[in-house]
Amino acid sequence: MNDEYFMKQAIIEANKALADEEIPIGAVIVMNDKIIARGYNQVEKLNDSTAHAEIIALTSAFNFLGSKYLPDASIYVTIEPCLMCAGALYWSKIGKVVYGADDEKNGSISPNKILAQNKDHWPFHPKTTVVKGIMKTECVELIQNFFRQKR
Amino acid sequence: MNDEYFMKQAIIEANKALADEEIPIGAVIVMNDKIIARGYNQVEKLNDSTAHAEIIALTSAFNFLGSKYLPDASIYVTIEPCLMCAGALYWSKIGKVVYGADDEKNGSISPNKILAQNKDHWPFHPKTTVVKGIMKTECVELIQNFFRQKR
Repeated sequence: MNDEYFMKQAIIEANKALADEEIPIGAVIVMNDKIIARGYNQVEKLNDSTAHAEIIALTSAFNFLGSKYLPDASIYVTIEPCLMCAGALYWSKIGKVVYGADDEKNGSISPNKILAQNKDHWPFHPKTTVVKGIMKTECVELIQNFFRQKR
Repeated sequence: MNDEYFMKQAIIEANKALADEEIPIGAVIVMNDKIIARGYNQVEKLNDSTAHAEIIALTSAFNFLGSKYLPDASIYVTIEPCLMCAGALYWSKIGKVVYGADDEKNGSISPNKILAQNKDHWPFHPKTTVVKGIMKTECVELIQNFFRQKR
């Protein structure tokens, strides 16, 4: 199974958020080619502005593994993680971060070119591989359609 | 009641972490001069590398108020928040962040001079007031004693 397969699973999670009228962002965490945790944006439902897809998936993965570090796991998330989520992924020491669409407003890298260009300010863990743009078109459309309908 | 009073309360929380052999970091969230939420580092106990004092206190405050934003609240935390916690505080739109000791290794500002000097890269919300150095000596000693005893 490849990156596209798992990103499709993250999109399925994002659609659960959409069904709840949340900003459609989803994530899955994968180990040994198996999904060990899932999460989708629940900011409105939980009345918690930090209840992002990645945070929910991380908490679930820590609980599932009984481990506070995830060096052998990968997270697939439909949108570029924000600074909070990049920080949470840093602490988890997750092996790989794969995201679909850039987030030029709230992303941890895209709006902060300084962070992205200087390894001393790179927000992810130095041992974490970061891959972007997997199923980008689908991930961008998901968000764009949501905000278009809101207007 | 002043900043020192509430920072002492955060130190009481940090000592609860210490009693559990966790890195002693504590936080309280205050609204209208009353403590509405408390938290201390529970990374080891919860096997969750993101279970920082600030995150636990924030979740508790959101639940208590039934609101995902905290513009009229202040958080008092013994150590400078990390990038994850600064990001979480950003999303909460908290009114004021007060911390004791700088964290030159994992802090969101101290190790990243670029972030601190450029408002485009400032990690906290633009409407959040940040105050540092309240009861600094006590907050520094708390952490230093912990690591000294670990060695």
